[in-house]
Amino acid sequence: MKRTLHLAVAQTGPIQAHHSRKEVVARLCELLKEAASRGARWVVFPELTLTTFFPRWSMDDPAQVRSYFEAEMPSPETLPLFELSRDLQVGFYLGYAELAGERQFNSSILVDGGKIIGKYRKIHIPGDAQAQENYPVQHLEKKYFEVGDLGFPVFDAGEARIGMCICNDRRWPETYRVMGLQAVDIVMVGYNTPVAYGRLGEPAHLPALQNQLPLKASAYQNTCWIAAAAKAGVEEGIPMIGGSCIVAPTGEIAVQALSEDDEVINYVCDLDLANGYRNNIFNFARHRRPEHYKAIVERTGADTTPL
Amino acid sequence: MKRTLHLAVAQTGPIQAHHSRKEVVARLCELLKEAASRGARWVVFPELTLTTFFPRWSMDDPAQVRSYFEAEMPSPETLPLFELSRDLQVGFYLGYAELAGERQFNSSILVDGGKIIGKYRKIHIPGDAQAQENYPVQHLEKKYFEVGDLGFPVFDAGEARIGMCICNDRRWPETYRVMGLQAVDIVMVGYNTPVAYGRLGEPAHLPALQNQLPLKASAYQNTCWIAAAAKAGVEEGIPMIGGSCIVAPTGEIAVQALSEDDEVINYVCDLDLANGYRNNIFNFARHRRPEHYKAIVERTGADTTPL
Repeated sequence: MKRTLHLAVAQTGPIQAHHSRKEVVARLCELLKEAASRGARWVVFPELTLTTFFPRWSMDDPAQVRSYFEAEMPSPETLPLFELSRDLQVGFYLGYAELAGERQFNSSILVDGGKIIGKYRKIHIPGDAQAQENYPVQHLEKKYFEVGDLGFPVFDAGEARIGMCICNDRRWPETYRVMGLQAVDIVMVGYNTPVAYGRLGEPAHLPALQNQLPLKASAYQNTCWIAAAAKAGVEEGIPMIGGSCIVAPTGEIAVQALSEDDEVINYVCDLDLANGYRNNIFNFARHRRPEHYKAIVERTGADTTPL
Repeated sequence: MKRTLHLAVAQTGPIQAHHSRKEVVARLCELLKEAASRGARWVVFPELTLTTFFPRWSMDDPAQVRSYFEAEMPSPETLPLFELSRDLQVGFYLGYAELAGERQFNSSILVDGGKIIGKYRKIHIPGDAQAQENYPVQHLEKKYFEVGDLGFPVFDAGEARIGMCICNDRRWPETYRVMGLQAVDIVMVGYNTPVAYGRLGEPAHLPALQNQLPLKASAYQNTCWIAAAAKAGVEEGIPMIGGSCIVAPTGEIAVQALSEDDEVINYVCDLDLANGYRNNIFNFARHRRPEHYKAIVERTGADTTPL
């Protein structure tokens, strides 16, 4: 019998600054109910789901900054989502800004049966630590978030081994490889990606292509499923890419969101689809040659000096 | 002024067992002349270009095996290609079976001005060391080739920094990352890929998709151009994929071969196209976190034990 897992991705439309936590959580509960009604066992929400994507603004007032962070999880505002998850037996991934004592992380949690069973803190923090002159849109994640300190853990969630990453992490092959080496079945990822991110003056079709391309290649190269959830639409005047999707170990998109609004997509994933690859072309134990990969950990930046 | 380099890829049709080195080299010379006539500065030939893809056969007679290898490079048979390269000022990448004393490698060389300026020996050797029962097509590279011992070097070839890999190497993200960390501008790769490789009983459209997918993602993730040359068509009864292409740092295919025969494709590559990525989203020095990548070198196979 096939080992399957029914996955859903809950893309959201924009979360504006005036939306309260309570309003946002009510939307997420509706999405979770919709996923449950289709039979999904897990649902993936975006990065920093509970508020607008505040790193687009340079803020120096600590109280203002802290208003975007969660000091406890669940909090009274987010508890309804945990309770609904428990009652409907649907697990979820949720991205949020985590205040841990005085430390600030861009984090995600894995919740099952109403309980947190895993946490991840974003490692590849993009953008800048200070506002840049002449940038039409700032991207100040390095100002607000420390580099994550939990590595890329993979959690045994009963039917499947689940790993997490967040937004920019998805563009880096190391992210998935570290999880692939832990025999991950499913990588969940939420993201907020302004269309203008990168400021390259590049053709308008590229941000969407460059979102799905690493997802597809990494699912194939690491013999796993990837479920990716965007916060999409025009948020505080800034257009964000959508393109939420579930990607198979073949490197193919199984299902994708076509809207830029709140939208649930779902797919019954054959977890054994990866086995042919794992046992043959991507049998890591037989074919990988770590003695030739040392530069990946010994060198950080690109450098023309010989290895 | 843009820093450009005119690249060509010379896909070949099948090389059958009865084709002599002299016949093959004559075909390669025609392809090199065609590339030169279009203004190309470099041309990429396939893997194991000089003979049929012999690892499909299990051979135990040392003399028979050695007949597929080159004990010297250039040899009298291959010298015309070197001379033509010198005369037309077109550099080339050529894959061939290398006999180094008693050692056997699946190798490639970079030739410019008629001289070898770089060598690579394939690291990710696929397939088996012994013939497998019930396989319709054998893939015995592990029988014939040692794992390469030269790492993934990048060569300063004047106008550009050029790296090489061979066939199955192109599916492994570590291949490109080690070269990306050496600020590679262009990765050249030749391949022989039977349509049935992998023996997964998978849908027929996947081998072509899974060829180009890692090329596209890796060009994007490592801010380089990739020039990939297939040996295509039905060789000794075995259908091979084509799909030779030149891929840009945007993750897009710039040009691809549509035939399964001898065919030259070419593109004037803007080597500075990568700079926007290198200075921003893929500024490795600013964003990579090798302290979280250790598993990539410390673990070979996939393993459910925690890191």
